[in-house]
Amino acid sequence: MIVVMQLGATEAQIQAVAEAIRAKGLEPLVMPGDDRTAIGIPASLTPDQRMTLEGVLSRLEGVNKISETSHPYKLASQEYHRDPTLIQVGEEKIGAGHFAVMAGPCSVEGYEEYREAALMVKACGARILRGGAFKPRTSPYSFQGLRVEGLKIIQQVARETGLVTITEVMSADMVEVVAEHVDILQIGARSMQNYPLLIEAGKSQRPVFLKRGPSATIDEWLLAAEYVLNEGNPNVIMCERGIIAFDRTYTRNLLDLTAVQVLKAQTHLPVIVDPSHGTGVAKFVPGMAKAAMVAGADGIMVEVHPDPAEAKSDGSQTLDQAQFAGLMADLRRLSDYAGVKL
Amino acid sequence: MIVVMQLGATEAQIQAVAEAIRAKGLEPLVMPGDDRTAIGIPASLTPDQRMTLEGVLSRLEGVNKISETSHPYKLASQEYHRDPTLIQVGEEKIGAGHFAVMAGPCSVEGYEEYREAALMVKACGARILRGGAFKPRTSPYSFQGLRVEGLKIIQQVARETGLVTITEVMSADMVEVVAEHVDILQIGARSMQNYPLLIEAGKSQRPVFLKRGPSATIDEWLLAAEYVLNEGNPNVIMCERGIIAFDRTYTRNLLDLTAVQVLKAQTHLPVIVDPSHGTGVAKFVPGMAKAAMVAGADGIMVEVHPDPAEAKSDGSQTLDQAQFAGLMADLRRLSDYAGVKL
Amino acid sequence: MIVVMQLGATEAQIQAVAEAIRAKGLEPLVMPGDDRTAIGIPASLTPDQRMTLEGVLSRLEGVNKISETSHPYKLASQEYHRDPTLIQVGEEKIGAGHFAVMAGPCSVEGYEEYREAALMVKACGARILRGGAFKPRTSPYSFQGLRVEGLKIIQQVARETGLVTITEVMSADMVEVVAEHVDILQIGARSMQNYPLLIEAGKSQRPVFLKRGPSATIDEWLLAAEYVLNEGNPNVIMCERGIIAFDRTYTRNLLDLTAVQVLKAQTHLPVIVDPSHGTGVAKFVPGMAKAAMVAGADGIMVEVHPDPAEAKSDGSQTLDQAQFAGLMADLRRLSDYAGVKL
Amino acid sequence: MIVVMQLGATEAQIQAVAEAIRAKGLEPLVMPGDDRTAIGIPASLTPDQRMTLEGVLSRLEGVNKISETSHPYKLASQEYHRDPTLIQVGEEKIGAGHFAVMAGPCSVEGYEEYREAALMVKACGARILRGGAFKPRTSPYSFQGLRVEGLKIIQQVARETGLVTITEVMSADMVEVVAEHVDILQIGARSMQNYPLLIEAGKSQRPVFLKRGPSATIDEWLLAAEYVLNEGNPNVIMCERGIIAFDRTYTRNLLDLTAVQVLKAQTHLPVIVDPSHGTGVAKFVPGMAKAAMVAGADGIMVEVHPDPAEAKSDGSQTLDQAQFAGLMADLRRLSDYAGVKL
Repeated sequence: MIVVMQLGATEAQIQAVAEAIRAKGLEPLVMPGDDRTAIGIPASLTPDQRMTLEGVLSRLEGVNKISETSHPYKLASQEYHRDPTLIQVGEEKIGAGHFAVMAGPCSVEGYEEYREAALMVKACGARILRGGAFKPRTSPYSFQGLRVEGLKIIQQVARETGLVTITEVMSADMVEVVAEHVDILQIGARSMQNYPLLIEAGKSQRPVFLKRGPSATIDEWLLAAEYVLNEGNPNVIMCERGIIAFDRTYTRNLLDLTAVQVLKAQTHLPVIVDPSHGTGVAKFVPGMAKAAMVAGADGIMVEVHPDPAEAKSDGSQTLDQAQFAGLMADLRRLSDYAGVKL
Repeated sequence: MIVVMQLGATEAQIQAVAEAIRAKGLEPLVMPGDDRTAIGIPASLTPDQRMTLEGVLSRLEGVNKISETSHPYKLASQEYHRDPTLIQVGEEKIGAGHFAVMAGPCSVEGYEEYREAALMVKACGARILRGGAFKPRTSPYSFQGLRVEGLKIIQQVARETGLVTITEVMSADMVEVVAEHVDILQIGARSMQNYPLLIEAGKSQRPVFLKRGPSATIDEWLLAAEYVLNEGNPNVIMCERGIIAFDRTYTRNLLDLTAVQVLKAQTHLPVIVDPSHGTGVAKFVPGMAKAAMVAGADGIMVEVHPDPAEAKSDGSQTLDQAQFAGLMADLRRLSDYAGVKL
Repeated sequence: MIVVMQLGATEAQIQAVAEAIRAKGLEPLVMPGDDRTAIGIPASLTPDQRMTLEGVLSRLEGVNKISETSHPYKLASQEYHRDPTLIQVGEEKIGAGHFAVMAGPCSVEGYEEYREAALMVKACGARILRGGAFKPRTSPYSFQGLRVEGLKIIQQVARETGLVTITEVMSADMVEVVAEHVDILQIGARSMQNYPLLIEAGKSQRPVFLKRGPSATIDEWLLAAEYVLNEGNPNVIMCERGIIAFDRTYTRNLLDLTAVQVLKAQTHLPVIVDPSHGTGVAKFVPGMAKAAMVAGADGIMVEVHPDPAEAKSDGSQTLDQAQFAGLMADLRRLSDYAGVKL
Repeated sequence: MIVVMQLGATEAQIQAVAEAIRAKGLEPLVMPGDDRTAIGIPASLTPDQRMTLEGVLSRLEGVNKISETSHPYKLASQEYHRDPTLIQVGEEKIGAGHFAVMAGPCSVEGYEEYREAALMVKACGARILRGGAFKPRTSPYSFQGLRVEGLKIIQQVARETGLVTITEVMSADMVEVVAEHVDILQIGARSMQNYPLLIEAGKSQRPVFLKRGPSATIDEWLLAAEYVLNEGNPNVIMCERGIIAFDRTYTRNLLDLTAVQVLKAQTHLPVIVDPSHGTGVAKFVPGMAKAAMVAGADGIMVEVHPDPAEAKSDGSQTLDQAQFAGLMADLRRLSDYAGVKL
């Protein structure tokens, strides 16, 4: 932590800052400058130490600003864990050079419909099946999902098709039942900072797929991953799905593809991109999915449906079979170029 | 819903849109224009009808854009419920001309500390006591609150001081225990779209204090209130606490005071402003609290502490006794002007 | 400037950073920490020195991040100039306890119309008249203003009414002609970083009214003021007029009232709020204008028109005579409370 | 335009809206719905007609909201001009399947330095040379460029190397001199809505390279292009260079790659991506440049320098020769895949 003093701060003010730091058992390092003094605290503070110290120092006379020098996450950081994390689910590998395609309808609407969708996903060559049983919906009047009935359908269809499955879990008390039926636990964007849920997911043995909140910074997102990792679950997959946008005339969210590059520089965890929610528009999905591969993503999650016009939700961002098959063919060609296994 | 066709859309394309609307049992109203045609659907659609229709229509040739004509919330809307909602908790009134001041420390740190803070709140003339027992913290390494022990302290201190109490509840399964100990249930900004929690709070008899999510639109926020109202709980208090900012050099969040005016025009629910989280800086709190009263808010929530420099969290945005007493005096003078009871 | 090294940075990497700093003639201060080293540069750098140094240091191995410790503006800073700036235009005072009301139509539409608007402004008790002769319009097909003809009308009406005048100047080559006809030069939000214009305005003797750009940080805005101040013109007025918003359902821009408090803590320059552009909705203007006064603003700029429904532009955010007279009466009552002269 | 009435709006209120529309010489189309009435205006309005009408209608009782049905731009729209625009500068082609690489230093620092940079650009296989003679700098204390002397250097180096050149022009009165020395006129992000400059650029015969403003919507950006097109200059190149971000911990701006797809669906103009300013970090530039090609961009603009550590500005986002040569090789391989000529 660095405390920057105001111009013309007096020696007494500088000493008061130094004293306040010593009073917390830390050693200040005073750096007099040409026109203002900075005071460094060359120690690794816990978040609580940092916050308490900020409370104290921000109230002292002559203090101009206080800034942080260290990342707040550890287990998620490349600094502690150099090699990329490889996540294995059955035969399926995610990360460390393995490009994962997760596809399926927005929500599980019934056994027949879901089975048809799963067969389409498989026919197109994808091996991970998505589909919501519990649906977080902005309006209470919208379809909320088939719930546990939906989980059973997912499990049944997984057995019949051999596909790996992923579905969203919305609260801590449902982690167990979701983990019994499905391979990968998805934490939705609206739940990224639902800490009881993150902790419970961290206690589960299932890989956790963590979507970025619409206004989460990279650090907040990695700290959410840290909650899961800190419970002993090393298998976290980060998913960029679009952030809050000031222009929503043509798209629903703002896909932040650079976040893939930033995460690849900061963390060892795999990074997936969801261009369906990221753009909200079916015709933009293939282009952004391919751009994601080239930008270094470890996979994509896309909404597909045998008949998008009949989907109960998100039809306007959903690919049909022809579109999805076309995208898979493109990705396969591109994977040689990108140096990943698909 | 209005479907706007592209320039030069053919008669066949226009008819296909009209047909697709009729196929859903709705009657289209075709409006030919100078240069492009619009097609209205003069019916009140459910969110699912709207979404399904969007999925169908967005895929048809010649469609340029689709826009909504009705608000998605009902119970929260002034259109259905003209008179402002007055919420009564014991002797305390919130809304409909009654200005509420909710004050207290960020978190409950122990019985002695909390009692001292409560006495300070009371001495300054406020009647609603805040304080977190369950703390949603960005980092897993931060102090997470005293939990149920904290609830007991809040209840004990409430009995001794006669103050009304409010505390945050972070998950659906904790609603019951929080409601047993505390008067008002706070839903934090990070939980604004935690639907299981909203539903459970809606089933409780306690008033629900609903903070705006950092990237929530006004409509999304009112729809979150709608979840609570829809369960039969009419006592929802909206709280603006700052939204996501592109400039965080001098403040932590971006306080959206105009939201007070917008809500007052759209809903009958009371609106509270939290300038402590809204700015993140103690010296900016009094000015923004007073501005909130003048802008039409029904109250404020502020962080206060007998010794902010010793607070375990949020010290840099917390008022001490002198600052809070000064603010209360200012608000009292201003309340005559603003025409509210304090 | 502080350079923070990565965890596990080697001694050789640390020395390479120190060397690179010395190679630029500066003295590094190495601060070894528990887990990582920071290297301070305790000198006041010019922006170019800083940028060059960043270019060098960001490429060295082992560097984690580089952060700034000093504000980039000087002349605009309270650190160099403690007393609030008082700007005098004829008899009219702006800043240092004098609350200015600038009112008038969006654009000058003709002599008769403008004279009528001016008489209304005067009748309501305001003394500064606004009105655009050059209009920056998003579409090339919109009315662009009467230009020099408009300037002449403003000057003529000013002579007849005794009002002080302000109008926008859109390019450096027009500063001279605008300054000949009008008292205060307005730099619009879209021109905040039009540096040739800022420099030319800085060479003029007229006060400069500098609107904040929709995505400008406080520092960028103060640096834009610095361009004017640096040319020898000390009379700069800052104007908050709403920033970019992610939710534009109910308002046009997002009024950042906290910016008033931040500027009051950072600069000696007067701060005006424009709630007309800040909200874009006439019914929200009075509430936010009053909140601005209470938040510490030195004045407001509002759009008024004898018949807003007939205004050529911005009618939906314009106050009519009754609304404006009501606002002025409210502000007068409130000015006692706020301790400002109106 | 569609006017949506409030719930329970009376017949008299509906008729008043219809009358107000007729009073402007337009024919209203009333659409009674289940629960609320909408009133369409099936005519193509000019921006002024629309704004005046909004001013009138927004003041009438019973009106809930007013929404637009048509795009405000015409010349830039694909609806009027289906085929992609191909821009030819000497031998160089931009757009319509031709991928352009524009590279060079941030600013022209001297003849020797610029010549060396140009030779490096040419050696790596790029054919368009960038470099600023006039530099828009946030701080008045930063290097502002060599100005006309810089233009002469650009021209001289272009003659010696045969490269096509592009440089920024910051004000209308400099368009002529810049156009005399350089092939393509760049309008910077901060000047996107400098209308006098856009108009003057529109009168020039030079292609205009239009950077997106940091908070410009797609429609505002296309309307800025419309200013140029409307003066008779058909050769406009759109450049996405990153928009305003709420998280600037790891990047300088937020690159909006989906904007490429949106523009490709809306306009016939070529679209270029600038990953140097878009990310602000050299190591992220190659990945995002390649993603841009795959996302459908018609080219990239990148900052390169023989010795980035010695560049006077933007060194931390600048590629050196090895990095740029690597990127060019990657793009060449990828161009087969993407189906573009490089």
